[in-house]
Amino acid sequence: MQIGLIGLGKMGYNLALNMKDHGYDVIANDVSAEALQAIRGEGIETADSIQMLAEKLPSPKIIWMMVPAGEITEHVIQQVSAHMSEGDILIDGGNSNYKETIRRGQELKEKGIYFVDCGTSGGTEGARNGICTMIGAEPEAFAAVEKLFRDLSVENGYLHAGKPGSGHFLKMVHNGVEYGMMQSIAEGFEILDKSDFDYDYKEVSRVWNNGSVIRSWLMELMENAFSKDPELAGIRGVMNSSGEGKWTVEAALDFQASAPVIAMSLFMRYRSQENDTFHGKVVSALRNEFGGHAVVKSEE
Amino acid sequence: MQIGLIGLGKMGYNLALNMKDHGYDVIANDVSAEALQAIRGEGIETADSIQMLAEKLPSPKIIWMMVPAGEITEHVIQQVSAHMSEGDILIDGGNSNYKETIRRGQELKEKGIYFVDCGTSGGTEGARNGICTMIGAEPEAFAAVEKLFRDLSVENGYLHAGKPGSGHFLKMVHNGVEYGMMQSIAEGFEILDKSDFDYDYKEVSRVWNNGSVIRSWLMELMENAFSKDPELAGIRGVMNSSGEGKWTVEAALDFQASAPVIAMSLFMRYRSQENDTFHGKVVSALRNEFGGHAVVKSEE
Repeated sequence: MQIGLIGLGKMGYNLALNMKDHGYDVIANDVSAEALQAIRGEGIETADSIQMLAEKLPSPKIIWMMVPAGEITEHVIQQVSAHMSEGDILIDGGNSNYKETIRRGQELKEKGIYFVDCGTSGGTEGARNGICTMIGAEPEAFAAVEKLFRDLSVENGYLHAGKPGSGHFLKMVHNGVEYGMMQSIAEGFEILDKSDFDYDYKEVSRVWNNGSVIRSWLMELMENAFSKDPELAGIRGVMNSSGEGKWTVEAALDFQASAPVIAMSLFMRYRSQENDTFHGKVVSALRNEFGGHAVVKSEE
Repeated sequence: MQIGLIGLGKMGYNLALNMKDHGYDVIANDVSAEALQAIRGEGIETADSIQMLAEKLPSPKIIWMMVPAGEITEHVIQQVSAHMSEGDILIDGGNSNYKETIRRGQELKEKGIYFVDCGTSGGTEGARNGICTMIGAEPEAFAAVEKLFRDLSVENGYLHAGKPGSGHFLKMVHNGVEYGMMQSIAEGFEILDKSDFDYDYKEVSRVWNNGSVIRSWLMELMENAFSKDPELAGIRGVMNSSGEGKWTVEAALDFQASAPVIAMSLFMRYRSQENDTFHGKVVSALRNEFGGHAVVKSEE
């Protein structure tokens, strides 16, 4: 089976190798000439433009996009869909917002093109050796590409979640859950660190991973991290985020669902990105106004 | 090696069998005559009283307590320690508050008895086939019983966490982390349930357990739960708790550690235990006072 793959970033590159391992005939495209050269060195055919990639594929064309969400995804869809026609299948394996996915699916459906959304989890190592895929698609489109998802995923690691949009929505909620689980694990270590005991965090992660209720892949990653840097002295506690946690909280608001822990995890990330806060100034100013409590002055 | 075991509840009973499997010569005691009879049926010797149990053991005596935290633990320690002397080791495998553990350890130390605190995780199945143990103990006491912990635990599943109290403290924080992880997982399913999509939650748990970032033992338990009751229709969302989450939040307050997600998980449990709340009445009354907004009247 021939597959077009657009995007050779960390995920896409490894996915191309994963596809090749499973006997797929991959034609890859990327804006980076270096990435194209590297993947050719792995014995994978490349196309210098999206148009060339689309033209090389037989009908019905199957094209997997693995590019950053937002404008780039929008731009690539416009470019590639101009060279696709009825019965072709376009897969978005990125972290797109499900609302945009639903709109894009409706637009492409008018041209007879199936748009399949695939939430992809497992990181670059997963992309190489077996990912976890959550797929939103019309039943006939899913049937046409089910074997591809089965081959690229770990055993039992793919799911046809429902109609278009349901795959990206499920991956978004997965990431929201991830925020809360990570913050909870992090607060546990925070309390251990401020206690009067003298724990070896690598050993704590190790024992928590063997037989305890909170054993998990995230705890295994903690064991790795603490084995490299026992007290994480080389890392500042600035917690960035890439959008899916925010979208999960927005969805909770849209549906009036109570999700205070996921919301708090997101707010704690925002807090960590600031050295000082305006709300801190406000509370300090009020304590000073009503009680004469001293304030910490800004350093000029 | 001879071991005394006090407490044949769900955990203790399975632990007795686990000890026997590993060649230990167990003498068991419980307040329930039924439990004593049952364990005798498994070929384990019993003692009808704590005093008889202590007297049957050779010196240095090693006694493992597996009884409910609080008053019962306090009472059993007073009873059993009266029949123990210098160099003997008393292990508390229950979920005792670490502050009480530290006090008890100091009191027993005055009589030369080593008090070893062991936080035990893994549930009844773990007790039977391999637990996770977090141990606080003086180095010489730990050295004397390390083999016992190694034998009863899963591979790599025991840790000498530090001085007395550190084992129960570590288990307490483990449970706090568990609260946050569970609430985060739960909120994810809450958002899925209120969305416009139609997910099969058993299938969602299954795919999230294979290759995703949030794969974990808790998610495996969700898969089991949804396979028995696809929408948990038979369960009310009342979330009880048994104290360790509260103690974790108290510790965070004592040490002035930020742990909002663990605290919120605890508060959401309290909220779930009430059909109506006083704070809800207060907010509704205020909205009515300032804006004339309608209130929902109490049903008499």
